[in-house]
Amino acid sequence: MRAYTKLKEIFKDASLSSDIAGILHWDMSTMMPSNSRDQRAEQLAYLSKLSHDKISSNEVRDLILEAKSEELNQNETYNLREIEREHKLTSSVPSDLIQKISRTSAKCEGEWQDARKNSNFNLIKNSLGELIKLTKEEADILGKEFNLSPYEALVNKFEPGSSTKLIANVFDDLQHFLTPLIDTIIDKQRSQNILPIQYKISENQQKVIAEHIMKIIGFDFKRGRLDKSVHPFCGGSTNDVRITTRYNEDNPFSSLDGVMHETGHALYELNLPEKWSHQPVGKSRGMAMHESQSLLIEMQITRSLAFKTFLSKLLKDKFNIIDKSFDANNLYLLGTRVEKSFIRVESDEVTYPLHIILRFNLERKIFNNEIEVNDIPEAWNDEYKKLFDKKVEKDTDGCLQDVHWYAGLFGYFPTYSLGALTAAQFASQLRIDLPKLDLNIEKGKFDDLVNWLKTNIHEKASFFSTNEVLEQVTNSSLNAKYFKNYINNRYL
Amino acid sequence: MRAYTKLKEIFKDASLSSDIAGILHWDMSTMMPSNSRDQRAEQLAYLSKLSHDKISSNEVRDLILEAKSEELNQNETYNLREIEREHKLTSSVPSDLIQKISRTSAKCEGEWQDARKNSNFNLIKNSLGELIKLTKEEADILGKEFNLSPYEALVNKFEPGSSTKLIANVFDDLQHFLTPLIDTIIDKQRSQNILPIQYKISENQQKVIAEHIMKIIGFDFKRGRLDKSVHPFCGGSTNDVRITTRYNEDNPFSSLDGVMHETGHALYELNLPEKWSHQPVGKSRGMAMHESQSLLIEMQITRSLAFKTFLSKLLKDKFNIIDKSFDANNLYLLGTRVEKSFIRVESDEVTYPLHIILRFNLERKIFNNEIEVNDIPEAWNDEYKKLFDKKVEKDTDGCLQDVHWYAGLFGYFPTYSLGALTAAQFASQLRIDLPKLDLNIEKGKFDDLVNWLKTNIHEKASFFSTNEVLEQVTNSSLNAKYFKNYINNRYL
Repeated sequence: MRAYTKLKEIFKDASLSSDIAGILHWDMSTMMPSNSRDQRAEQLAYLSKLSHDKISSNEVRDLILEAKSEELNQNETYNLREIEREHKLTSSVPSDLIQKISRTSAKCEGEWQDARKNSNFNLIKNSLGELIKLTKEEADILGKEFNLSPYEALVNKFEPGSSTKLIANVFDDLQHFLTPLIDTIIDKQRSQNILPIQYKISENQQKVIAEHIMKIIGFDFKRGRLDKSVHPFCGGSTNDVRITTRYNEDNPFSSLDGVMHETGHALYELNLPEKWSHQPVGKSRGMAMHESQSLLIEMQITRSLAFKTFLSKLLKDKFNIIDKSFDANNLYLLGTRVEKSFIRVESDEVTYPLHIILRFNLERKIFNNEIEVNDIPEAWNDEYKKLFDKKVEKDTDGCLQDVHWYAGLFGYFPTYSLGALTAAQFASQLRIDLPKLDLNIEKGKFDDLVNWLKTNIHEKASFFSTNEVLEQVTNSSLNAKYFKNYINNRYL
Repeated sequence: MRAYTKLKEIFKDASLSSDIAGILHWDMSTMMPSNSRDQRAEQLAYLSKLSHDKISSNEVRDLILEAKSEELNQNETYNLREIEREHKLTSSVPSDLIQKISRTSAKCEGEWQDARKNSNFNLIKNSLGELIKLTKEEADILGKEFNLSPYEALVNKFEPGSSTKLIANVFDDLQHFLTPLIDTIIDKQRSQNILPIQYKISENQQKVIAEHIMKIIGFDFKRGRLDKSVHPFCGGSTNDVRITTRYNEDNPFSSLDGVMHETGHALYELNLPEKWSHQPVGKSRGMAMHESQSLLIEMQITRSLAFKTFLSKLLKDKFNIIDKSFDANNLYLLGTRVEKSFIRVESDEVTYPLHIILRFNLERKIFNNEIEVNDIPEAWNDEYKKLFDKKVEKDTDGCLQDVHWYAGLFGYFPTYSLGALTAAQFASQLRIDLPKLDLNIEKGKFDDLVNWLKTNIHEKASFFSTNEVLEQVTNSSLNAKYFKNYINNRYL
């Protein structure tokens, strides 16, 4: 058997075990009884060790060397490149450490649910401290291995090839563009005549509506589900993509927007090339690319006037929800309302990057040893005051709002805003390629859109870097001007 | 490290991977989207191979030899005995075959759901044929290894130490006792004045009632769940025990009885000794023992007049369900109604053994190569005619009713009736040890009962054989007289 074929088998096994972990994670957040947490942590640590041991082995190292001298076609070469990247990433970190991180983060994520319920950071402080300590060990090792700063090494886990210097520059630029703009927009919107939503929609009906729209857009319920969890996510496994949301009966659109976001993620996963299932090159590209897909659907599409026209009609005709506040134009104004909110996932697309900049700044400080775990709540609140000129009153509005850190995801946040920039860049091309896009959306036809995404982005999986795909599709590498144009057009 | 300690670690890993498979199985039957079946089959095959490879390795064989010469305490010796049994059981069957069986049965179980929906045996014939072929290969290998007939080797997988000759004798005895009795009882019951249940209880409310009663009996919802599936089962993993049921709005008690049955299984799993979690000796004993625990709760307890008194009052006081038909005595008569039904899981405890005898007879014929897969529907219907003197009109009333064969579980059925005999034998002692049992049950107090089961049975896990436990608790090895007495007392 060729070395390359052996590698394919090994990476298929690793993919199966990470798919299984995907289902267990979903179960942990949606279905699992509360006192089973320790058992689940052990199961996840076991699976994580299993993948890690497989991918990081000396056998794989030798097979990679051997495969490089074998005759491979173009796609196989791309796959081998990704295989090597994964091997390097995992072989440098000892499997003991990986297992400790996995166990601690499963425990911490569970405790965070209580801490958040009680708005009490102290309940989670020790576990989070332990998790940060372990993640620093990992970051130091990865940093040395790849010749990056520790924090940069973490960001590279999620978006390979990124530079924190570049990100800091782009974010600086964004912050300077957005800070004056936000007050201008808020001023301008003061005179808007908007009807607030006072019509309550029950949780059950919200779910029915969300599933109905997911189906119309193209989510395949024979290969996926929608459930409820504290923090919305897109997870599951190959060919079984599970998204979650949370419901607020007083604000039905906070859930629907979230569902649309996760649907964007899910479409990407569901449209990956079947032929390359379970191979590294057949997986989705970095997290910035993933986030571009969720934001493209959530922001570029479902917040457009065309979509609100479709939605308003659907609610009226299909669900008999009739209320002045559900008129298309009112929904559009509501969906483009700019406000300085505390909660990232409830914020609008204009202030959103500032939420990310806050987390990015804090993460850099944590991993540069400028602040301790004890300082996090205060540091958060200081940074928020600086960026938004508002005071955080409770930690659920501050550092307890997101699951990420408590699940061990440090270096992940910046990919959200890189995703927003990428989404705007794709969307500008999309509107050129599909001039009838808005007309079709108004009629509830999403085939063209989804096919465009599938062909131009989803099916490219990890064959190319995010930047290469941007260049193929838009003839330009990442450029913030598309996002700035888009914000100017929509909000001014 | 001692060889014994190494063995403990290896068997812990194997237990983790079978726990994970338990959650994936549960998910497959309750939550999984339909088109993800192939992926799930691959995941389960992967986990199954993983456990199999670990347990069956030459390393384990050598460690067992070494551990035998180490100084072990009594409990460790018992654990080593179970470790050796598991090693022998798995090392004799090639891992390729195990993996094929796992994959085929996952596929077959899925297709069975369609076949059952359409009452069309042809839809499943090929997959079932393939599964039988593979299981015969396994049975031949195990039979040779353990010096048993192929079918006996399969039964021994589920209840170690059983002899099909002995089972055939006990079943013959039972059949001769029951056949004349059934007509007598049906005759006697003709004059009973029973009110049928005409009060509909919605699926939702049935679930609320079932969960309420499960809680009172002692099911810990922080370590378990109740869900819905086509075929009820008790599954999940260590410390996370998940039972399922199906609902019939016209007959609320068909679901509640099923829930009580699975609760009996679940209490056993939840009360296993925590100190021996993940070790072979800390697992539940064979399936006959397991079934004795489910039947003890379902038949001996929840069909008693005392329980019906408690239930009737609960439905009235707590759930405001008021109807003549819910009087305790009427519920008791309904619950002890004897009828020749087609469906095993809906049948009463008197005719139940005949359903098992039918399956036992067919299984022996299949594995003695007396009938082919094509002959199954006809052979089923012939056997049913012989035992019940009634004609099966459709395969959903016949060979498509149970999931077992389609999930690859051949040799499992006899354990149900061995369990009924064992349950009756335990219950006779239970009523001697706890003279106030019925009075407590009437008041909804189940602590004494559950503690008795925990101390006398559950905590003994696999330290002793089923028969040893019977002797410890009742001073007698398995004897059908307890069951006969019980049936005579309750029904004549």
